[in-house]
Amino acid sequence: MALIVQKYGGTSIAGPERIKKVARRIIETKKRGNRVVIVVSAPGDTTDKLMETAQQITPSPTDREMDMLLATGEQMSIALLAMAIHALGEEAVSLTGGQVGIVTDETFTNAKIRKIDTKKIEKELSKDRIVIVAGFQGITAKRDITTLGRGGSDLTAVALASVLKADQCEVYTDVAGVYTADPRIVSDARKIDRISYDEMLELASLGAQVMVPRSIEVAKKSSVDIHVRSSFNDEEGTVITKEVSKMEGVVVSGVAYDKDLVKVAITDVPDRPGIAAKIFGALGAGKVNVDMIIQSSAAEGVNDISFTVNKGALKKVLDIMEKVKQEIGAKRLVYDDGVAKVSIVGVGMRTHSGVASKMFSALAEENVNIEMISTSEIKISCVIKEKDTEKAVRAIHRKFGLAKAPGKSRR
Amino acid sequence: MALIVQKYGGTSIAGPERIKKVARRIIETKKRGNRVVIVVSAPGDTTDKLMETAQQITPSPTDREMDMLLATGEQMSIALLAMAIHALGEEAVSLTGGQVGIVTDETFTNAKIRKIDTKKIEKELSKDRIVIVAGFQGITAKRDITTLGRGGSDLTAVALASVLKADQCEVYTDVAGVYTADPRIVSDARKIDRISYDEMLELASLGAQVMVPRSIEVAKKSSVDIHVRSSFNDEEGTVITKEVSKMEGVVVSGVAYDKDLVKVAITDVPDRPGIAAKIFGALGAGKVNVDMIIQSSAAEGVNDISFTVNKGALKKVLDIMEKVKQEIGAKRLVYDDGVAKVSIVGVGMRTHSGVASKMFSALAEENVNIEMISTSEIKISCVIKEKDTEKAVRAIHRKFGLAKAPGKSRR
Repeated sequence: MALIVQKYGGTSIAGPERIKKVARRIIETKKRGNRVVIVVSAPGDTTDKLMETAQQITPSPTDREMDMLLATGEQMSIALLAMAIHALGEEAVSLTGGQVGIVTDETFTNAKIRKIDTKKIEKELSKDRIVIVAGFQGITAKRDITTLGRGGSDLTAVALASVLKADQCEVYTDVAGVYTADPRIVSDARKIDRISYDEMLELASLGAQVMVPRSIEVAKKSSVDIHVRSSFNDEEGTVITKEVSKMEGVVVSGVAYDKDLVKVAITDVPDRPGIAAKIFGALGAGKVNVDMIIQSSAAEGVNDISFTVNKGALKKVLDIMEKVKQEIGAKRLVYDDGVAKVSIVGVGMRTHSGVASKMFSALAEENVNIEMISTSEIKISCVIKEKDTEKAVRAIHRKFGLAKAPGKSRR
Repeated sequence: MALIVQKYGGTSIAGPERIKKVARRIIETKKRGNRVVIVVSAPGDTTDKLMETAQQITPSPTDREMDMLLATGEQMSIALLAMAIHALGEEAVSLTGGQVGIVTDETFTNAKIRKIDTKKIEKELSKDRIVIVAGFQGITAKRDITTLGRGGSDLTAVALASVLKADQCEVYTDVAGVYTADPRIVSDARKIDRISYDEMLELASLGAQVMVPRSIEVAKKSSVDIHVRSSFNDEEGTVITKEVSKMEGVVVSGVAYDKDLVKVAITDVPDRPGIAAKIFGALGAGKVNVDMIIQSSAAEGVNDISFTVNKGALKKVLDIMEKVKQEIGAKRLVYDDGVAKVSIVGVGMRTHSGVASKMFSALAEENVNIEMISTSEIKISCVIKEKDTEKAVRAIHRKFGLAKAPGKSRR
């Protein structure tokens, strides 16, 4: 008897009718002869509303109490979903993160899972029950309630699938799967059938909003296949899985973009050893995640150093960099928040040459200026003007022929 | 350093402004040199809304899942209140029923408290923190979440005051205390300063909506004084306490009424031993709480038996009684849901005669017909027509001079 973990996001269970529909889908899965563990998010916009309420009390609520508050959202979901399943005549039991034994560290609002006790779930499964687990939440060794941060429910599902050695982990969402590009921008974007963990990791961190990198890392580590699919129909979605040889025929899997970034530059930096370490050491100490870094020689003995960070970190970065500028005796600190990053991802890049130049010429043909470039084994990213984003994504998608199904040549 | 338990009801914490106001009151209590344990209900109409949501899923949600759902209401309250206290610069920690260790039996939606672990609360108090406990909820030995039923948050407060040996238990509500009669009916009803547990028990079960009997029983058993008062001002309310000798000077403490009842009569019942046992045994087996019972001789060899039950139980009672009627060969089964019960309560009745006749003449002077009478040591109840309720309550209140403060003669 196969064990299937299914995760349903907030939009999939927003309102009684959708909850009942999800209940029917779950029961069908069980009736096909499977044991079933369900993970749910808070219904609809519940989490946002709870956050708003907290803001009305104080602009800076304490993290522990925020988690106490937010955890109620998923607790509502599991209770309502269990009721819906009972009403259809099947046995189900709802469990909070604490009741399962999802033990985390004490980093409230962004906790890391330390270990998961599988006994309670296994006991309920052995009674032939559908087990419904609250996503996004855990409990510390001292029994304080924690939450796992953005994408936390996905993480709960993948982590459960891993420790329970599930045969499948299905993530139901409001999109049909992972696409070769954002379908809102590229009308002929194609749904990808299978994609490797590494590609998905790059796509996730590049702004494809399907799953957060943490969940994919956990899945990769334990080789759990994740099937991302729509809860509104029965179509197959995208399976995120380990790299298989036939994937190599596909040079580029998809195009991603990210508008949530700002480019910061510090100019006329003295060309001495240890300067870059000083800059990025200071940013690291301030817990700023720096994405791309470029150093160029402006003139004899001086350099310009540019890097990108998330928009939300800008104020902090400027505070830190102003001090660093004084220390190292650089000339100017400037930033540009009118930029975006477009990227192509594909495991096939490793063995195919000419991919970068093809991307650059796609951009050149549309008169899109490239401000920064960074590459990895399976990714090429370019920083461009934000206003050019859509044009750039479409041009690259077309140039690599991504609308065509793989198998056909794509070089 | 005194230990004070304060309980705040749903209306006291409905909305951010009220929560902040309650936070200030709690901090004042602490700054007067007290250790403070707070119990809160769900904010405003949260519980009703959650019940409605469950109804949209299924008309008969399972009890365990109902408790899982409802317990989120109080969890929101404790988080928000702790945030409000933090924002004012004081240390506070919120705890769910499970985190405290309020262990109950497994009667979901109406659980009984089995034991309370005081270690966690005492540890937090010793760190000079305000401890905020979710009312109304507990946890079974198997760590399932339970709720305590109607008035459950009061019960949590009284039970905590008992096990923690608190010096005071203050119950903040939207009324100023316990009155000699419902102030909405009797304009000169007076707030009672002190009332005994027994009197309050009678008043509570007679329809004065201040506190449910269960909480008062727990308070009586452990001699915890309960101070019922308004959260909207600083006035003293009513202290529910053990009987003190000076109370005996007060013959009647208050007048209560209850419109939530229906009179059921079965007529021409054969006058044989065991008939009453058969009727009330059947009702008991059906878990119907019967209030007043009257048996009268209609004619030679036959009796009429009348009793009252809550309106909600009527359908069940008629089903049961129809069968019983066949079995015992009674003639007719009739009911009247247009009745009400008015009652007077006072520990002084024990030692004063003539109280009943004074009540009956108050009713007679207003042409109110008495249909049933029942008495206890400290209570006299009359069933009358529902439409006469207000008139009757006013007449009795006037007759016993309850608007005047005690100490002055009242016979």
